[in-house]
Amino acid sequence: MKLLIEHAAIVASATAAIIENGYIVTNGSYIEKIGSGEWQDAKDRFDQVIDAGGCVVMPGLINTHGHAAMALLRGYADDLPLQEWLQNKIWPLEDQLTAEDIYVGTQLGILEMLKSGTTCFTDMYFFEEQVALAVEQSGMRAVLSRGLIGFGEKGESAKQEAVEFVGKYEGYANGRIRTMLGPHAPYTCPPEYLRGIAELSKELQVPIQIHLSETRKEVADCLQQYGKTPIQLVKEVGLLDRPVIGAHCVHVTDEDLDIIAACGMAIAHNPNSNLKLGSGIAPLTKMLERGIVVGLGTDGAASNNRLDMFEEMRMAAMIHKGLLENPLAISASTALHLATKGGADALFLGNSLGTLTVGSLADFIIVDFQKPHLQPRHDILAHLVYAAAAGDVRDVIIDGRVVIQNKACLTLDETQIFKQANQIVDRLLQRQ
Amino acid sequence: MKLLIEHAAIVASATAAIIENGYIVTNGSYIEKIGSGEWQDAKDRFDQVIDAGGCVVMPGLINTHGHAAMALLRGYADDLPLQEWLQNKIWPLEDQLTAEDIYVGTQLGILEMLKSGTTCFTDMYFFEEQVALAVEQSGMRAVLSRGLIGFGEKGESAKQEAVEFVGKYEGYANGRIRTMLGPHAPYTCPPEYLRGIAELSKELQVPIQIHLSETRKEVADCLQQYGKTPIQLVKEVGLLDRPVIGAHCVHVTDEDLDIIAACGMAIAHNPNSNLKLGSGIAPLTKMLERGIVVGLGTDGAASNNRLDMFEEMRMAAMIHKGLLENPLAISASTALHLATKGGADALFLGNSLGTLTVGSLADFIIVDFQKPHLQPRHDILAHLVYAAAAGDVRDVIIDGRVVIQNKACLTLDETQIFKQANQIVDRLLQRQ
Ligand SMILES: [Zn+2]
Ligand SMILES: [Zn+2]
Repeated sequence: MKLLIEHAAIVASATAAIIENGYIVTNGSYIEKIGSGEWQDAKDRFDQVIDAGGCVVMPGLINTHGHAAMALLRGYADDLPLQEWLQNKIWPLEDQLTAEDIYVGTQLGILEMLKSGTTCFTDMYFFEEQVALAVEQSGMRAVLSRGLIGFGEKGESAKQEAVEFVGKYEGYANGRIRTMLGPHAPYTCPPEYLRGIAELSKELQVPIQIHLSETRKEVADCLQQYGKTPIQLVKEVGLLDRPVIGAHCVHVTDEDLDIIAACGMAIAHNPNSNLKLGSGIAPLTKMLERGIVVGLGTDGAASNNRLDMFEEMRMAAMIHKGLLENPLAISASTALHLATKGGADALFLGNSLGTLTVGSLADFIIVDFQKPHLQPRHDILAHLVYAAAAGDVRDVIIDGRVVIQNKACLTLDETQIFKQANQIVDRLLQRQ
Repeated sequence: MKLLIEHAAIVASATAAIIENGYIVTNGSYIEKIGSGEWQDAKDRFDQVIDAGGCVVMPGLINTHGHAAMALLRGYADDLPLQEWLQNKIWPLEDQLTAEDIYVGTQLGILEMLKSGTTCFTDMYFFEEQVALAVEQSGMRAVLSRGLIGFGEKGESAKQEAVEFVGKYEGYANGRIRTMLGPHAPYTCPPEYLRGIAELSKELQVPIQIHLSETRKEVADCLQQYGKTPIQLVKEVGLLDRPVIGAHCVHVTDEDLDIIAACGMAIAHNPNSNLKLGSGIAPLTKMLERGIVVGLGTDGAASNNRLDMFEEMRMAAMIHKGLLENPLAISASTALHLATKGGADALFLGNSLGTLTVGSLADFIIVDFQKPHLQPRHDILAHLVYAAAAGDVRDVIIDGRVVIQNKACLTLDETQIFKQANQIVDRLLQRQ
């Protein structure tokens, strides 16, 4: 498949000079050429020519933390204290979810992500092979891990399943699927279990994702039980000797941050989820000052309630300016970087993803700027971060293939997914 | 004009029971009937029948603070310290704006607001008669005031113009335009000037809008100059004896809040603008605990950069949950109230606006829920606040008239406005 995108304003990265009128040529999965001005050669060698006049082309957004199938639980139980939310609402419903439910829920989540310009997402859940199936069929790119709760025999059999999952799905679907090991958190995986995961990660040569220091209570409990912060704990068990992306890191000390920086651990910053659950506000500027690699994430739709990386990008910029009473705290350029190249780096895929570069994977989005909130055209980068929204995404190209065209998904049946998702919810809540 | 909206899920207010399948009948400017189930009578007496199947009908959003024409400056100068932003960037450009520029800029702002579900906005700027013209033509509802800087002879002549403006435009355009007096702020209007405004407000029987306690520096300067906080100062000069809506109130003491509550002053809370400029985060929960009437606002597009009340509603809920580490701090219902009835009350229009009630003005919006981020359908109120976005607004009805239909504006020429807005900016920045 060969595509020509023409007449586009091109934002190749958060720091590159913007090409006001240019073209992009893809060849198979990759970007073959990026240029300024009109495409001069013949066009008949392309499978598709896309006119992006009045639009901006930018790298696809990368969602570095989430649980896509939780789209089924969106709006199911809001405005509750965290423990009540989890124990009385989310977990009982999750217990009832079948493999087929996860498949449909993931399709719904992917559909939302694709339509809002995300071209690669991270997932940690159960029935993860269903997630892989939905990813394969949707044309999305993803980094998947079977979520691991490390207690007892179930913990061991889950680990075995994770090994099989990595074996089967690493590099699957033309390389669109990559895998990680996904120990849930230090409070659900004992130190010895985490030590085993570190060894396994080395053996299988895949990175690790884990929830870390999300709430004040989690850190206090960890200190009480182990005399260490969650960050100190995962360092001590050897986890940080491996490539790790830690989700949240809201309640981290300066010493924690120094450890993270020294070990090269990456962080998935989830500003909206952290706000909505009342977890707090992660010290993003301190992370960046230390050179820590940070990506942005939505977390699950039950705690957001969107899977919309434009919202995360905007929120990441806005909230830290306000909290620190410093309008320079996080610039538009920094926010855009976090949502693209920062995310790719945080997933250890920065070599081939996150910027529009010749030789990189052809994952990019076309944003329609003919909207009142994107006019007049002062500063495209500022518009992308502070004013653009999910609804402005017109086309999405992943792995060189058009997946969203004129706002319609070419790979998933939206009407069918809505119907099935509502049927599942009716069954779970016994509303039928 | 008589409209029938049918097959709609109806959210009549933030607290009313949701009608799962109902209808709304309008007659002229007003709502004549709201009911549940199918409309049983003849339909030939309606000028238009709108099928809202799969959609949610809710009160139009009310933007209680802004400067619409600043849409021209959207993205012009971001990520700068506040004083540099104002003095070196915004003010020099504003100085060059002509009456015609204000007209076009306001049209652009109104277009964005209409398309994102705002049915009434507040404005304080200069060449305000141009704003009135744009409002009249657009079908929008608005509360307008000529902005007043209270120094010297210019301050006096501006006051005279404000008197003329109120005389001409109060109740204009079938009552869609209401007026206020708009002294800019205590730091731009000396105490004696504010005293005169209070008297004028009584004479003309119109409310007052003013910026108050937006930044830490403003409060410190006021304390130094007058030995009083801005709130104490406006109380002392008699302003708070009149109906007043104060924009921002970010840096207010508990005593300030007690004064505001005791005097019945309303507040326009602008969470995104306050964040973006690094002003801080206003103590919304403390305001509501005291029973202070609060509405939400976008402020100008130069400091937001959207005029999107869905964003303000969501941000108002999210940020206070996160900051206070309490997921119950601001509920979806409270946020929806602030954006609708709270806003109407804050503009002293709560008798006729802000809820869907028989006899109220027919200002409402139809939100398309056939979107992945609004499925499955657990909780409509939570979806409206936490998941819905400007791009989901399908139709907008103001004063009983369809202004946005299927996402297209029936009253303004979008293409022409974009072109003119960009021409103005090219002229201002001498890019031609
Ligand atoms: Zn998570
Ligand atoms: Zn203002």
